Amino acid sequence: MALFRTIHQDTSSNARLGILSLGHGEVETPVFMPVGTKGTVKAMFHEDVKKIGYKLILGNTYHLYLKPGLEVLSQFGGLHNFSHWDGNLLTDSGGFQVFSLSGLRKIGEKGVTFQSHIDGSKHIFTPENVVDTQNVIGSDIAMCLDVCTPPDIDYRAATEAMQITHAWAQRAIEHRQHLGESFKGNLFGIVQGNFYEDLRKQSAEFFNEMDFPGIAIGGLSVGESREQFSHFLGYTAELVTKEKPRYVMGIGSPDYILEAVENGIDMFDCVLATRMGRNGGIFTDDGIITLKKAIHTFDHGPLEEGCTCRACTQYSRAYMHHLIKTGEMLGGMLATEHNLTYFYRLMERVRQAIRENRFASFKREYLARFYAK
Amino acid sequence: MALFRTIHQDTSSNARLGILSLGHGEVETPVFMPVGTKGTVKAMFHEDVKKIGYKLILGNTYHLYLKPGLEVLSQFGGLHNFSHWDGNLLTDSGGFQVFSLSGLRKIGEKGVTFQSHIDGSKHIFTPENVVDTQNVIGSDIAMCLDVCTPPDIDYRAATEAMQITHAWAQRAIEHRQHLGESFKGNLFGIVQGNFYEDLRKQSAEFFNEMDFPGIAIGGLSVGESREQFSHFLGYTAELVTKEKPRYVMGIGSPDYILEAVENGIDMFDCVLATRMGRNGGIFTDDGIITLKKAIHTFDHGPLEEGCTCRACTQYSRAYMHHLIKTGEMLGGMLATEHNLTYFYRLMERVRQAIRENRFASFKREYLARFYAK
Ligand SMILES: [Zn+2]
Ligand SMILES: [Zn+2]
Repeated sequence: MALFRTIHQDTSSNARLGILSLGHGEVETPVFMPVGTKGTVKAMFHEDVKKIGYKLILGNTYHLYLKPGLEVLSQFGGLHNFSHWDGNLLTDSGGFQVFSLSGLRKIGEKGVTFQSHIDGSKHIFTPENVVDTQNVIGSDIAMCLDVCTPPDIDYRAATEAMQITHAWAQRAIEHRQHLGESFKGNLFGIVQGNFYEDLRKQSAEFFNEMDFPGIAIGGLSVGESREQFSHFLGYTAELVTKEKPRYVMGIGSPDYILEAVENGIDMFDCVLATRMGRNGGIFTDDGIITLKKAIHTFDHGPLEEGCTCRACTQYSRAYMHHLIKTGEMLGGMLATEHNLTYFYRLMERVRQAIRENRFASFKREYLARFYAK
Repeated sequence: MALFRTIHQDTSSNARLGILSLGHGEVETPVFMPVGTKGTVKAMFHEDVKKIGYKLILGNTYHLYLKPGLEVLSQFGGLHNFSHWDGNLLTDSGGFQVFSLSGLRKIGEKGVTFQSHIDGSKHIFTPENVVDTQNVIGSDIAMCLDVCTPPDIDYRAATEAMQITHAWAQRAIEHRQHLGESFKGNLFGIVQGNFYEDLRKQSAEFFNEMDFPGIAIGGLSVGESREQFSHFLGYTAELVTKEKPRYVMGIGSPDYILEAVENGIDMFDCVLATRMGRNGGIFTDDGIITLKKAIHTFDHGPLEEGCTCRACTQYSRAYMHHLIKTGEMLGGMLATEHNLTYFYRLMERVRQAIRENRFASFKREYLARFYAK
């Protein structure tokens, strides 16, 4: 069966409905993926992640490679079994963390050498071993190793990073072919090109021609301005083939998500929902509630009227305020569950709006209310 | 109905089976109470605490008085409603924390003045307002304000602390009578007397004569030697009337619990099970497992064979080791649930052994195995 099929194209925007057919079940798109960096969606039981409705979560190759490490994951038959998650898993290539977290990274002939941020030990990620690593993890969707660049580099550096990304993608695909049946996942390419239109175009065309079942648009949400993000998201999405699922990494606030959906992006992930939850930041249709504020001290109401999550059905804002103020773990647990429930419901409403050809107005009305206060 | 009735006296020891009839349901004794210091048993959903089987948990008056504070608790009709806990609640008097946590405490005519450990603000606990506070909290079992003393004070200081404790108990009971029907809980007295036999005897006899429905043995597990604890536990328990439930505060390791049970103690609480869980200390019949140790890295087995908790039925020791090593919240959540499940099951086995008049041999065999490794 094909990895991806579009089932409806919204008439009011480039938004579209689709189905990803993955090794651990079908997933409706557009889809938001919670992040389980080290094999756990922070502060959540995996069974509750599943109960909310999520069928696809993310793990980070860099972190999992360092801890628990490949020997453990291999002995346990992969991360699904190790972490008791029977839905789908997507892993990044590890490239982003190598470039943002690790020390003394250096790009060479074979790949990128780096030092662990944990103990300073030396490692190398190559286009080939990153495919192997994700195969050990058991990822349903794996990513090619790419070179991530910040928004302020010059054209020459951006070109070079793109060229290396393309060469590595070629090597990754050859390695995948070499692995044959023993490679179980779906390997996605990652478009780069920094914030230069002609490079983005070159990169999109390169990946359109390659035999990848899905394409990620990389190098966005890396510190650029809101305007740069919008421009390069729309510009690049337009150039990427409509036949394959399109994924943008690291976006997760409702406005970024809706903008991505509007441009025909099918998949996105972000730590925002979970990280903000742990700090008492609560997503609602009326914007973000900061639970630490004293205004909630006596508030009998739920985090959000009508929400079906454990926090909203069992507890008051006052109790949530108390938990967050006193640093109790239960505060982070409940707030995370609310935010993940909120994002799941948001995506259901997004898909419903697309189905009814009214995504453009949905987005307008949603954002007007979200930012009204 | 009477608060407490004994339903069986073990023939092999002073251990006994009983039933506490409280405002939120009956509780079998001997009972171990998990601690929910600030209105949450750390790292647990209250519904899971209940699912394990617990029907009586503890809250700390000192902490709850400071945060969320009485105004909030009063507006929410008490801690049961505020924290969504429909089982029973026991609260301590706050005395222990005033003497161990707060700054500049001073015993005066009215009660004890102290400074909050959070913001340095000044407060006073009196025998009367501590009863009121616990009534606002909605405690099913409340404690009299007492004077807690460390194990190394001289006879004169110990006598004085005991005398103040007795005077305060008298005032507390008068205040309770004054409150009449509006006081809903069961007010327990606390035997003091430090580590002096004649003072312990005086204090036990004092409380035996007073109109308290239950008696706590205070001033144990406060830093004294193992021998001192054993001696004064047995000595004092023997002196306290057998008609009423007997409670020892702050004991929670299996050996201390079993020793208390053996001496006819009916109730105990401790943060040990939950605190050790959060740090990866796992209780099993074969002793305590330290999850951080590298020996668990590849271990496919559960924390404990046969345990029905979420950690043991879904995850390996290797995954638990990974979570604790990487500081993931899920590690603390799962380990806490295991430990609370373990202690609940331990108390079920204790009660079964008493029922079958074999508590003495149960204790001997249990401890032999627990300390064998
Ligand atoms: Zn909610
Ligand atoms: Zn267990």
